[in-house]
Amino acid sequence: MIRVPAEPAGTFPDAWRHCVGTGRLDLALRRDYQDSLALLQREIGFRHIRGHGLFSDGMGIHRPYDHAGTRHVHHSFTHLDQVVDAYLSAGIRPFLELGFMPGGLASGDRTVFWWRGNVTPPRDLAEWAALVRATLAHLVDRYGIDEVRTWPVEVWNEPDLPDFWQDADEQAYHRLYEATAHAVKEVDADLRVGGPALSPGAGEGWLLRFAEFAERRAVPVDFVSRHAYSSGPAQHVPFGVHQTLAPAGRLLDQFAAPRRELKGTRLADVPVHITEFNSSYRPDNPVHDTAFHAAYLAPVVVAGGDLADSFSYWTFSDVFEEAGIPTALFHGGFGLLTHRQVRKPAYHLYAFLARMGRDLLTRGDDHLVTRHPDGRVTVLAWAPVDPSGATPGPDGHTLRLSVPVGGRGEAFLWRLTVDEEHGNAYTAWRRMGSPRSPRPHQIDVLHEASEPARSHRRLPIEDGRVDLPLTLARHEVAFVELSRVEDETPPWWDERRLLGREPA
Amino acid sequence: MIRVPAEPAGTFPDAWRHCVGTGRLDLALRRDYQDSLALLQREIGFRHIRGHGLFSDGMGIHRPYDHAGTRHVHHSFTHLDQVVDAYLSAGIRPFLELGFMPGGLASGDRTVFWWRGNVTPPRDLAEWAALVRATLAHLVDRYGIDEVRTWPVEVWNEPDLPDFWQDADEQAYHRLYEATAHAVKEVDADLRVGGPALSPGAGEGWLLRFAEFAERRAVPVDFVSRHAYSSGPAQHVPFGVHQTLAPAGRLLDQFAAPRRELKGTRLADVPVHITEFNSSYRPDNPVHDTAFHAAYLAPVVVAGGDLADSFSYWTFSDVFEEAGIPTALFHGGFGLLTHRQVRKPAYHLYAFLARMGRDLLTRGDDHLVTRHPDGRVTVLAWAPVDPSGATPGPDGHTLRLSVPVGGRGEAFLWRLTVDEEHGNAYTAWRRMGSPRSPRPHQIDVLHEASEPARSHRRLPIEDGRVDLPLTLARHEVAFVELSRVEDETPPWWDERRLLGREPA
Amino acid sequence: MIRVPAEPAGTFPDAWRHCVGTGRLDLALRRDYQDSLALLQREIGFRHIRGHGLFSDGMGIHRPYDHAGTRHVHHSFTHLDQVVDAYLSAGIRPFLELGFMPGGLASGDRTVFWWRGNVTPPRDLAEWAALVRATLAHLVDRYGIDEVRTWPVEVWNEPDLPDFWQDADEQAYHRLYEATAHAVKEVDADLRVGGPALSPGAGEGWLLRFAEFAERRAVPVDFVSRHAYSSGPAQHVPFGVHQTLAPAGRLLDQFAAPRRELKGTRLADVPVHITEFNSSYRPDNPVHDTAFHAAYLAPVVVAGGDLADSFSYWTFSDVFEEAGIPTALFHGGFGLLTHRQVRKPAYHLYAFLARMGRDLLTRGDDHLVTRHPDGRVTVLAWAPVDPSGATPGPDGHTLRLSVPVGGRGEAFLWRLTVDEEHGNAYTAWRRMGSPRSPRPHQIDVLHEASEPARSHRRLPIEDGRVDLPLTLARHEVAFVELSRVEDETPPWWDERRLLGREPA
Amino acid sequence: MIRVPAEPAGTFPDAWRHCVGTGRLDLALRRDYQDSLALLQREIGFRHIRGHGLFSDGMGIHRPYDHAGTRHVHHSFTHLDQVVDAYLSAGIRPFLELGFMPGGLASGDRTVFWWRGNVTPPRDLAEWAALVRATLAHLVDRYGIDEVRTWPVEVWNEPDLPDFWQDADEQAYHRLYEATAHAVKEVDADLRVGGPALSPGAGEGWLLRFAEFAERRAVPVDFVSRHAYSSGPAQHVPFGVHQTLAPAGRLLDQFAAPRRELKGTRLADVPVHITEFNSSYRPDNPVHDTAFHAAYLAPVVVAGGDLADSFSYWTFSDVFEEAGIPTALFHGGFGLLTHRQVRKPAYHLYAFLARMGRDLLTRGDDHLVTRHPDGRVTVLAWAPVDPSGATPGPDGHTLRLSVPVGGRGEAFLWRLTVDEEHGNAYTAWRRMGSPRSPRPHQIDVLHEASEPARSHRRLPIEDGRVDLPLTLARHEVAFVELSRVEDETPPWWDERRLLGREPA
Repeated sequence: MIRVPAEPAGTFPDAWRHCVGTGRLDLALRRDYQDSLALLQREIGFRHIRGHGLFSDGMGIHRPYDHAGTRHVHHSFTHLDQVVDAYLSAGIRPFLELGFMPGGLASGDRTVFWWRGNVTPPRDLAEWAALVRATLAHLVDRYGIDEVRTWPVEVWNEPDLPDFWQDADEQAYHRLYEATAHAVKEVDADLRVGGPALSPGAGEGWLLRFAEFAERRAVPVDFVSRHAYSSGPAQHVPFGVHQTLAPAGRLLDQFAAPRRELKGTRLADVPVHITEFNSSYRPDNPVHDTAFHAAYLAPVVVAGGDLADSFSYWTFSDVFEEAGIPTALFHGGFGLLTHRQVRKPAYHLYAFLARMGRDLLTRGDDHLVTRHPDGRVTVLAWAPVDPSGATPGPDGHTLRLSVPVGGRGEAFLWRLTVDEEHGNAYTAWRRMGSPRSPRPHQIDVLHEASEPARSHRRLPIEDGRVDLPLTLARHEVAFVELSRVEDETPPWWDERRLLGREPA
Repeated sequence: MIRVPAEPAGTFPDAWRHCVGTGRLDLALRRDYQDSLALLQREIGFRHIRGHGLFSDGMGIHRPYDHAGTRHVHHSFTHLDQVVDAYLSAGIRPFLELGFMPGGLASGDRTVFWWRGNVTPPRDLAEWAALVRATLAHLVDRYGIDEVRTWPVEVWNEPDLPDFWQDADEQAYHRLYEATAHAVKEVDADLRVGGPALSPGAGEGWLLRFAEFAERRAVPVDFVSRHAYSSGPAQHVPFGVHQTLAPAGRLLDQFAAPRRELKGTRLADVPVHITEFNSSYRPDNPVHDTAFHAAYLAPVVVAGGDLADSFSYWTFSDVFEEAGIPTALFHGGFGLLTHRQVRKPAYHLYAFLARMGRDLLTRGDDHLVTRHPDGRVTVLAWAPVDPSGATPGPDGHTLRLSVPVGGRGEAFLWRLTVDEEHGNAYTAWRRMGSPRSPRPHQIDVLHEASEPARSHRRLPIEDGRVDLPLTLARHEVAFVELSRVEDETPPWWDERRLLGREPA
Repeated sequence: MIRVPAEPAGTFPDAWRHCVGTGRLDLALRRDYQDSLALLQREIGFRHIRGHGLFSDGMGIHRPYDHAGTRHVHHSFTHLDQVVDAYLSAGIRPFLELGFMPGGLASGDRTVFWWRGNVTPPRDLAEWAALVRATLAHLVDRYGIDEVRTWPVEVWNEPDLPDFWQDADEQAYHRLYEATAHAVKEVDADLRVGGPALSPGAGEGWLLRFAEFAERRAVPVDFVSRHAYSSGPAQHVPFGVHQTLAPAGRLLDQFAAPRRELKGTRLADVPVHITEFNSSYRPDNPVHDTAFHAAYLAPVVVAGGDLADSFSYWTFSDVFEEAGIPTALFHGGFGLLTHRQVRKPAYHLYAFLARMGRDLLTRGDDHLVTRHPDGRVTVLAWAPVDPSGATPGPDGHTLRLSVPVGGRGEAFLWRLTVDEEHGNAYTAWRRMGSPRSPRPHQIDVLHEASEPARSHRRLPIEDGRVDLPLTLARHEVAFVELSRVEDETPPWWDERRLLGREPA
Repeated sequence: MIRVPAEPAGTFPDAWRHCVGTGRLDLALRRDYQDSLALLQREIGFRHIRGHGLFSDGMGIHRPYDHAGTRHVHHSFTHLDQVVDAYLSAGIRPFLELGFMPGGLASGDRTVFWWRGNVTPPRDLAEWAALVRATLAHLVDRYGIDEVRTWPVEVWNEPDLPDFWQDADEQAYHRLYEATAHAVKEVDADLRVGGPALSPGAGEGWLLRFAEFAERRAVPVDFVSRHAYSSGPAQHVPFGVHQTLAPAGRLLDQFAAPRRELKGTRLADVPVHITEFNSSYRPDNPVHDTAFHAAYLAPVVVAGGDLADSFSYWTFSDVFEEAGIPTALFHGGFGLLTHRQVRKPAYHLYAFLARMGRDLLTRGDDHLVTRHPDGRVTVLAWAPVDPSGATPGPDGHTLRLSVPVGGRGEAFLWRLTVDEEHGNAYTAWRRMGSPRSPRPHQIDVLHEASEPARSHRRLPIEDGRVDLPLTLARHEVAFVELSRVEDETPPWWDERRLLGREPA
């Protein structure tokens, strides 16, 4: 039995809600996307949102034209304004990622993804800098300098991978970063710029060399960023892949890496943002849809805040098209939500976190206990998994907590459960026959099947504490809330007089 | 094992959705009321709505004034238009009940209810007839004659009870009916008028005498109406009562009474509307809030359509103030929904009915089986109860059906459960300590606790049939849907390769 | 020509938006009311809302009952919670007025208004104090102490009038105030309590004696309050009255009275709230519906902030029933909005104020000029009226301003007009034939007719200034906005090539 | 003076609302698009919607893959279902256009538009037919056969132009049509299929040869379709063009052409759908944004229903990207609405049509007069324009009608005006300085500036008629409604007693 302390050990860090990932920015114009974001913000509430493609042609910002025999460039914000308006009206702010390269400014035609993001350096760094300045200046003009100063600005994405930056040319990235950071600061010295948004595979040297370059060239770096994924090699099937996963601790190692690597450098104390993380880095791995996935990630989202200032789940919605338009409702997408807003188990993991209290009472391998200002004590608990694929993992799990709720009498226990059978539309969808394009009635059932199981009961309080044994099912993530009962049952009430109860 | 026939026995009558009751009409101006009605119509979908107080002073229709030394009457529709607009925009139509008496037209000051509905005859029948004509004519002008012809017009409420009609004066009612019916027909001969809206306690003679009177005086009667309740005497406690109930069959007897009584009269074939029914006739009996109540009423709503053209659940919402403004969220109100739209078990009974198919396959003491045009077979099943209060009733119930779903392979089973623990916010509220004015967070939990339990699985199909054993918990009402699985799982899918499954 | 200074004289006080009046509190449960409030807050944005009837029986708070042979009192917040939830979700906070007397606590049966607010002292001051404490404590529990501390608490309404306080018994009011103020402070010492909510007719002595009493008895008074109206005696017609008005300055005199009267007393420096004001104090005077009314009040709302900390327009909506349920859409109600949210001219006066800038540039008898942080200069201008009824007043009015917009080139002028013909649904309704219950199509037309006229043009800037001649129509209130044009017309644009323009 | 007959000449044909055009189908996933469509349907109400790109890669329907060494094709409806769901929930139905060619089925890489619609024939007609069958069968399965039978199915778009069909290969189109029509009919014989969706420039021979081919090969043709545009050659500027226009009658000639050309053929009596029409065929011609445009098209939309079964305005919204993402709010797009739903003058032309009555009273070169069932008489009137660009056209226009409203007394006149100054956000935008990305405050002003001017007055009725002189401003389109006043002003009302009126 774990005796939960009655005095808080401090505040539970909410780095987990600092940022969330999204598919390419112009997807934010979609209705399904905006409805999903509204739901996400109502029930969870992230602070920032980060995605690729701000400067890609689907956003239509960089618009060269000829007039009177000369080349000119319009900077056009028709789409960007709609995207940012949508974010702010949903109560979330951009975490700007500057990339990829507009077609009219690209030095080559190499692209990434189905939607063809151009990954080549700019043909003209000055024209790129002008694009950055014009965009930031427009945002400041439209949304106000106080607002935009809260939006981090990240330069490019995973330049250490040739898929995302032609030849993974490190020197070229440094040049790009330098031009960009200066352009940002020319708009306003208090805008926050950072990078280098490294992939998990980037060797330690990359970040150190970035720090050295920044120091040598006196280039501003207000934060550093990298990504974290834990999957093994992809085994392809049509429209999908399978992968094994490293233990979840591997993700925490990656979260911790920047601070460890930068110790002693000029960047030792800048904020560290894990601007993408997930188990698999593939948008077509069915693991993302499962209860296993939520249980696998639970210890990561609970402990990550010790190691980094943010870690951004990649991504909030299956409205995401890097590998093409999905061909089935469940297709292994990154989303916490499917198309049409069916909640996945990992969504519930975040929704449970959002119901936790501010005060941290205790934390362990399989649990987190917090308290709200009004005295409610909340528990997040999860079952262990085997990510290797070698075994199906344990069938369930038990733990037992002594929870301080104060006072005497009884406590009201409220429990939400997500496991293989509950809060799990994926299981229902598989049982339905995996309908690629579910009928309206099937979508309704999937929405219902995605709701967690709920239960409640009363437990006795002794010495201000409740003895709480928890039995978790296979791959379960559970949320439990305990509150002392203030009984307003009137003195004349006799339960036995209610029909269907024990007769008087 | 009950072998459900594969061929439908006919269409399941939907008299259950023909009408629903409401508190006094001016409550329809409220936001909570309208939100509740919108929810009700989205998830259930009744056709008509009937409530008291159309002519009471809270609607402000009858407005006498003096001008130039003479008494005049304005007929004013400020509120009525808003009420009817609200109904139509929610997709429900009025079942007009003409009553009670406006203060300025009343012959006495006797009132009923906390809100003081005047129950005395008009001081002047001609002025009453003018009021009726003006109101109907206004409705026809505003909503169109085709629309208003679909709204039944009922004359007064329970004139056989002195509480509702001074001295229960039968002759006076006949006079009122006659004047009213003619006034209605003067507006349009195809408007449908009826009565006498008898209480359950009205002796058989009442209805016969009404038929004789109508025949003798050649008064139009387009339908007959009465009410049905099954509760025993009220045992009062502050803000509440307890009552025993007769077996549910007693309600069906009451539904059947008008046709039985009118056999051989001129009214033998007019439609019969049970314009109010419930177990207890008290708006402060906690039985209305329970799972027991849903299980008790299930056989009534399933069989009632054989006996009457409609039977109107009294009432859809706890926004209802006959005994005063409720002092607690759960207070034994008639509502399918509490204030703030928490669904009660009886709400789910209706919501389950609304998910049943058009084709009736079979029906029994504890079940109803129907089929949808797309082949889905739906089952409503319920556990027996003891309404006498002498015992708590059986702990559960089992039944077993052989369900024809056609084809081969497997069926997808989808089950919704409402019982003492699930779909039952009342149980949660009691466990919370019966908070009279729940905090916002408690209201959220009650909304969650009001959701039915959901489960799903696959069952084998043999000879086109599924063997469906059903185990019902105490006071459970269950909805089950079976559909043949059309499996779209691709040939390359290997479940064992999904993490957390049996390894390959 | 008035030369508007380029440097602000200070900030334009927004006392005008501090509070707005409402009909009795339980009307806040209505849909029309809530829709109206949402519109009001979206387009104008008041801070507080004040109305009668918090403790009247329609709110159902004070609920005596007998149990085991003893009288008890429940305090029930079923309605109050819904009302306050509605306010907060519309973005407005209560300005609590404690009154009238619950039936079960009243010492007599004297009532005011159609809805019968009981105006007698409590039978038992201790039971009244318990009611106050329980209500405030509940609000603090539900909404938090930080929130409730921002809600002023006013004791009773117009105790100097026998209609509102039996016999206008001053000593009895002092006793009530004392018991109430202490009860409020027992809940929290930082709650703000005040009074005495005097009528415009209260002699000077009333307030002084209140101050003396408060000092003598050491009773807390955190603010003082009174009302202001400017109408003469009522000349009755059925469902309406006519009245002449004093010049608008009379209202400002009343706003100024408390500070003047309290000079030298202990209450000299407490905030002064004019908790009700309007021209006529009658809810059935057609003047409220007219353009005349907006023009009459314009100088009051512009200057009032110099004299009082708030002045609360009585009331925001015609959903108001003191004289009975209105019998016609336009009936001379107090509302800025009619039933169903048709905007009246006075609504636009407030909506124009809400579009004014923070910086006050200048102010005069017929104009107010302000500037927004982004440089837009806004003008409110109004035509003079004759409130005596002796003449129809001047037909129009002209003024001329030299407006500093800075820079060079041209300015964009945007003008909104409300007068006898525009922004004036009342004129349209009269022309339609004064339909008491307008058809849906007529309501649509009235909504359209209530929109202000809009026009725009370009004006030259010379020496950083625009010469702005304004011609106002009869009873016009105009809003004008000037902003320097930043022309983005591309160099290749040739207006003459657009069809319908001068040919090239 | 034109004497409008009191008896209707028949029903005013509503072919004008049968169909409206849209940008490529996957734009329907956007929020701005769906909000615009909802507005359009609420205020106008079209029946069908037609756009390109159903089979283009942005819809993701045709999805080839390799498995076990063989090529297969998935048909995937992830996006299509969302698009059609959005249409139906907005109350509009698809007018299906089958095209362009999926990348995986194309025989070449020739594309049209910025978004690269592939315009080459299928590599494999059988695979194309399978795609058509699968898509129609899916729609029938999801939406029901009764629903889908109401959706016309058009084969390809403008195959007579090499831009839209490689080499404008007529034989290849016939082969495509034949395979497609049979595939459609295989799904259901009652689905309606047609073509050939000719461009305005297609010679007469094209349609005749299509009819001969259909007869010779016994290919089903349930309707014929062509397009109509009236613009001259494009004179390019950056991000825009200028063009002169032919007189509006040229459009009507094109509407009439199919029936004229097909006289005597087997297709003489099939319905004729003008599946696109507008003045200019360019999405970057500023004429689309002007009042001129509305006045130019008014006689076309009024008379078009005599000549064709539908004529589909191309397009309802500026959310349209054939020439790239628009770089400014007003950019000469086809839309009735701009991005963010600012109404253009042509929008109002349609909104005015939607307010006309069912009964046609009379029609002329500058007017249309209809009557509603409730007696309201409605007039649409418009000023003449000069489309040649040679002159700016007349400054205004007058007409005079004698309008039969019946009865005696007075009539209420309600008038809406759209001209250069009113209902014209384009003029306001130009005066603002043509801001490419307007600030939120500017967008608000543009929305206000887009509202028509409104006015009302009373006119005397003599001999059941109103003498209605109409003075139209430059390029004005006016809507006028006349209804007899049923005066409910009470006998005691004395206008002179209202303040600001003539004193008594």
